[in-house]
Amino acid sequence: MKTVYIIKVGGNVIDEPVVLDKFLSDFSKLNGLKILVHGGGKIATELSKTLGIIPQMLNGRRITDAETLKVVTMVYAGLINKNIVAKLQALKCNAIGLTGADANTIPATKRSVEETDYGFVGDIDNFNLAIQSLKLFLDNRMVPVFSAITHDGVGSLLNTNADTIASALATALSKEYETVLLYCFEKKGVLKDVNDNNSVITKISGSDYDRLKQTGIIYQGMIPKLDNAFTAIDNGVKAVYICHADDIISIINKGEQKGTCLIKEK
Amino acid sequence: MKTVYIIKVGGNVIDEPVVLDKFLSDFSKLNGLKILVHGGGKIATELSKTLGIIPQMLNGRRITDAETLKVVTMVYAGLINKNIVAKLQALKCNAIGLTGADANTIPATKRSVEETDYGFVGDIDNFNLAIQSLKLFLDNRMVPVFSAITHDGVGSLLNTNADTIASALATALSKEYETVLLYCFEKKGVLKDVNDNNSVITKISGSDYDRLKQTGIIYQGMIPKLDNAFTAIDNGVKAVYICHADDIISIINKGEQKGTCLIKEK
Repeated sequence: MKTVYIIKVGGNVIDEPVVLDKFLSDFSKLNGLKILVHGGGKIATELSKTLGIIPQMLNGRRITDAETLKVVTMVYAGLINKNIVAKLQALKCNAIGLTGADANTIPATKRSVEETDYGFVGDIDNFNLAIQSLKLFLDNRMVPVFSAITHDGVGSLLNTNADTIASALATALSKEYETVLLYCFEKKGVLKDVNDNNSVITKISGSDYDRLKQTGIIYQGMIPKLDNAFTAIDNGVKAVYICHADDIISIINKGEQKGTCLIKEK
Repeated sequence: MKTVYIIKVGGNVIDEPVVLDKFLSDFSKLNGLKILVHGGGKIATELSKTLGIIPQMLNGRRITDAETLKVVTMVYAGLINKNIVAKLQALKCNAIGLTGADANTIPATKRSVEETDYGFVGDIDNFNLAIQSLKLFLDNRMVPVFSAITHDGVGSLLNTNADTIASALATALSKEYETVLLYCFEKKGVLKDVNDNNSVITKISGSDYDRLKQTGIIYQGMIPKLDNAFTAIDNGVKAVYICHADDIISIINKGEQKGTCLIKEK
């Protein structure tokens, strides 16, 4: 089985041209089959502000109303995605920019309106992805680059969390490939001590995770990310790394121990 | 040899949701292999205005400066392209939205600055397209949907005329397929009398074209479009239709005589 690396980068990389260029250069050098999933960064927020769209928040989360959906489609699927593709092409990496609507790769469902209506937000059924199309791209040495937009199959685009897209891709593709998921963020990994950048926990198993949550070492913002990661592992993904964007070559090409590696229980 | 239909629609279709929906419904029903190329419409102009970008014109043509390139990338490759893809997917047409940067399908060259600098505008070498990638999509029943954006291969996106993209695709693919190009516009075809919508010239050969230009029947705006079309025909495209967007099913599925058909000299 061939290995596919699914790498997710967030706003901290997207927002800084120099950091982005360095990251894309590293990404282009990664051995093997690979997929990039990128978040949005600040550009969409700034454009919304310029256009006078007032962000609607609910329970600390942004609502994607019709105008916001237009903005994120323009910025994520247009501006950011196509510039990343052009830059990767210049690095001789045969990138192809996609949303989940393209070739119906990631069908989603508009989140049901129960207590709160988050608007045009899509939830993904991991077992419903068009892996034959993805396989076609990968097996022909194309490098899919996904923005965080999916669709509902009845004509509407949907804003979807980029972490979720990355784990859905890794999970769905694990039927055909060995998949390894890398969440790149601004720290070196999951830290034992949030104030000490050198306190990276190198490996976390499922039972370690329960203990780390109970003792309060892992908390707040990391929990959804790690929950997502362990769900992916439980559903066929071989390993998930939480690491710094600078460390992808070390981890993938050199097999060095960098970042935090999440693994299935032995 | 299989036939591929390359259909170009412009702003008059893109700008009107009801017209666009009708067109996409017709497009989804077309028999055989097909590619859609779409222009921009008014949305980019309106967004530029809202963002306070002052259009720079030179010899009656718009200059694509860096800010304008961002806007057209957002609107053409993001908003318009991905909404068309989502709508086509809802019609069970397996659309995949592309720019010329994606899978390096349409490499271009930034127009050289001689007397005038049009900015980030790309010219295409018809014999340099990545037809193997296009063939892969087509042969796997995907329907490429191109926005009018290409790239220079060294990291920059370029604004490119949609008519030119359509004829470049038709020309390049004529090595592997029989290609037919349809330019949809707001009239029923090339008119003998511009004030009489029923005066459509049904067929024009190369020598007819010379005569029609000399007698002033074809003039101004139509000339670049027709020059483009005859160049495509001289380079392997089987036929080019200049027709109304409403007539694509009649022409392709029913073989009816609609619009103006441009053909090679007998």
